[in-house]
Amino acid sequence: MLKGNAVIGQSGGPTAAINATLSGVVLGCKEAGIEKIYGALNGIEGLLEERMCDLRALLKDSKDHKVLEQTPAAALGSCRKKMPVPDKDPETYSKLLEIFKKYNIRYFFYIGGNDSMDTVLKLSTYMNGAGYEMRVMGVPKTIDCDLAETDHTPGYGSAAKYIATTVQEIMRDTAVYTVKAVTIVEIMGRDAGWLTAAASLPALHGNAAPDLVYLPEVYFNFENFYEDLAKAFEKHPNVVVAVSEGVRTEDGRYVGEGTQSGVADVFGHKYLSGTGKALELAVKEKFGCKVRSIELNLPQRCAGHLQSRTDIEESVEIGKAAALHAAAGETGKMACFVRESNSPYKCTIKTADIAKIANEVRSVPRSYINERGNNVTKECLEYISPLIQGELTNVFENGLPKHFVIER
Amino acid sequence: MLKGNAVIGQSGGPTAAINATLSGVVLGCKEAGIEKIYGALNGIEGLLEERMCDLRALLKDSKDHKVLEQTPAAALGSCRKKMPVPDKDPETYSKLLEIFKKYNIRYFFYIGGNDSMDTVLKLSTYMNGAGYEMRVMGVPKTIDCDLAETDHTPGYGSAAKYIATTVQEIMRDTAVYTVKAVTIVEIMGRDAGWLTAAASLPALHGNAAPDLVYLPEVYFNFENFYEDLAKAFEKHPNVVVAVSEGVRTEDGRYVGEGTQSGVADVFGHKYLSGTGKALELAVKEKFGCKVRSIELNLPQRCAGHLQSRTDIEESVEIGKAAALHAAAGETGKMACFVRESNSPYKCTIKTADIAKIANEVRSVPRSYINERGNNVTKECLEYISPLIQGELTNVFENGLPKHFVIER
Repeated sequence: MLKGNAVIGQSGGPTAAINATLSGVVLGCKEAGIEKIYGALNGIEGLLEERMCDLRALLKDSKDHKVLEQTPAAALGSCRKKMPVPDKDPETYSKLLEIFKKYNIRYFFYIGGNDSMDTVLKLSTYMNGAGYEMRVMGVPKTIDCDLAETDHTPGYGSAAKYIATTVQEIMRDTAVYTVKAVTIVEIMGRDAGWLTAAASLPALHGNAAPDLVYLPEVYFNFENFYEDLAKAFEKHPNVVVAVSEGVRTEDGRYVGEGTQSGVADVFGHKYLSGTGKALELAVKEKFGCKVRSIELNLPQRCAGHLQSRTDIEESVEIGKAAALHAAAGETGKMACFVRESNSPYKCTIKTADIAKIANEVRSVPRSYINERGNNVTKECLEYISPLIQGELTNVFENGLPKHFVIER
Repeated sequence: MLKGNAVIGQSGGPTAAINATLSGVVLGCKEAGIEKIYGALNGIEGLLEERMCDLRALLKDSKDHKVLEQTPAAALGSCRKKMPVPDKDPETYSKLLEIFKKYNIRYFFYIGGNDSMDTVLKLSTYMNGAGYEMRVMGVPKTIDCDLAETDHTPGYGSAAKYIATTVQEIMRDTAVYTVKAVTIVEIMGRDAGWLTAAASLPALHGNAAPDLVYLPEVYFNFENFYEDLAKAFEKHPNVVVAVSEGVRTEDGRYVGEGTQSGVADVFGHKYLSGTGKALELAVKEKFGCKVRSIELNLPQRCAGHLQSRTDIEESVEIGKAAALHAAAGETGKMACFVRESNSPYKCTIKTADIAKIANEVRSVPRSYINERGNNVTKECLEYISPLIQGELTNVFENGLPKHFVIER
């Protein structure tokens, strides 16, 4: 085994499981006998400033690991730094190489989404070219579930459980009155509709679920939407709609685009918000009835108090596996889930070349969406359902969930 | 004991505990030996149409009661009917009297907030005047915690626990990046700031809490707000603000008023939304930094998956007590909590004249708010804290909380 120390970073948007994966990578590093396990504060950005913590010292026992695993959002801090192409900015890479040498870092683990996998790809390619032997491994994380090569992503199951639970509660709430009303629930998902699809989960077992579910994989058509609503009103006065923030009309414009400034982040993604609000105004004008839009917003990605046990256990496991694969000599890879069977649910872990994953998006297949494009199929829900199974008994203190806080 | 049957109604906005109180009233009626226990579907509105269900038949055993108690939002349905003054609309009252006689209803329980207590007052006064002997009892329910005569209200503890937990999770989430950013969390509370005050709960035990907390009890001043933000930025780049939807400027205008249509409901309350959005836009213009507003919206009042054990147990108890007090001959009253001590927390139940409660609002006392008006005091948090203590092991089925659904 390559001798040297490890550094672990977290990157991209928070999830309720990213710390469970951090816990898993640390456990794997310990198991592999890696001596020093550094945590990079604020990802690659902090690493460039040598802002690190000692994870072995911070995580002393299984109780520490448990509290870390139930803490939402990156405990190490995150960043959204877009790594430059090495040719264009060799300084950043030589700076990193210098830091790796200084701390004898031979293992680099980056827990993140597809943008973070782009960092893993560039870094492993550069270090290889520079003749510095090290293992660079990506560990998946994203509530969006849209990474290529892996059956699903850590963090998705907990977000899906939160969304399905919250939408079911909203359905109870909106059903109390008899007046005609539309409730629009806006759910995250810029390009992939996996999160929005989860809103339909109660339907899998015959419980009330949203009447209409719109994913970004199908063009949104206002006339069809009005027709769908009119049909739903024939069944009951309280219509609930789940819609992805990323739905677009056929001309390629986001439905929520009109109500916002259209700022793009450093990766060129447009910030979306206001899709629910835009539909709320449209429905109010068309139907004149009571309309409310609810943006699930940040809580859907950081609800540590309602984790999926399956998700958290898997998140720890994939972190551990990434460390062990790296210790076994692999590099430039990402740990991935392979679904062996749906019922009983069984998943194994493999690794895949990072080049196949970086910057790719795994959308909801068209066959998982009904013909009309206003809901998902039973097959889709059967794919999602195993990922939300099981609950955890989280540690509460003074009535609130206990969190693991690392000073930065 | 007055012989006859009982009818129970739920009214006003949903909470996560209103069904626990329903469960308690049924348990109390059973204990008192009341034979038929009807549920009025959609409150007084449904009762006028004789839409009722048989609660004895629906709630067969303790398992049924348990699932009902963990189900958010009025299982019987609700209404927002404003009862007319008897002189102005004697027909409504004589219709009710007729229905009471037809079903031999001698016990009427109404679970609701201050508008519902207005219904209890009018009904008990009318029936008394009409010489129809019956017991009319109010049972408190409101997440707002703003009913007079009672130390607190069932439903508040669970909403407060959800708000404190969610705000704490949002704090974890927003702290992951290093860029200057303001996150504004808009919390329910038209006139009373009890819910918004709960956002500060993590501070009671030294954990990170919102930097700034604005309640409707103090006029909102934009210049002070900007100064407060500038000071908060001196401490850290991620500033979190909790604000009540009901904050007003000194001229009496709601901060969120500009961004909405100003529709009023049947009780004359203005619908508020957009307070967070209004502040978001103001901060963006003033500071030019990243700003996000999060409206906790309906989930804060219907998050059955994160109930406070104290709240749910008390909600059952107060329902039971209301039934037993009625069986003992009381009428025109509401069951109330009396806090005996804070630490150890101890509450007892009394009854109070409904006339003292109907249409009154119990605000957060000025002494519970700091001098600057931008946060609550330790004393305030010590009052709230006991109400969020304890968790429940809820029944999940297929990964989602099980709900008790009554067909309407």
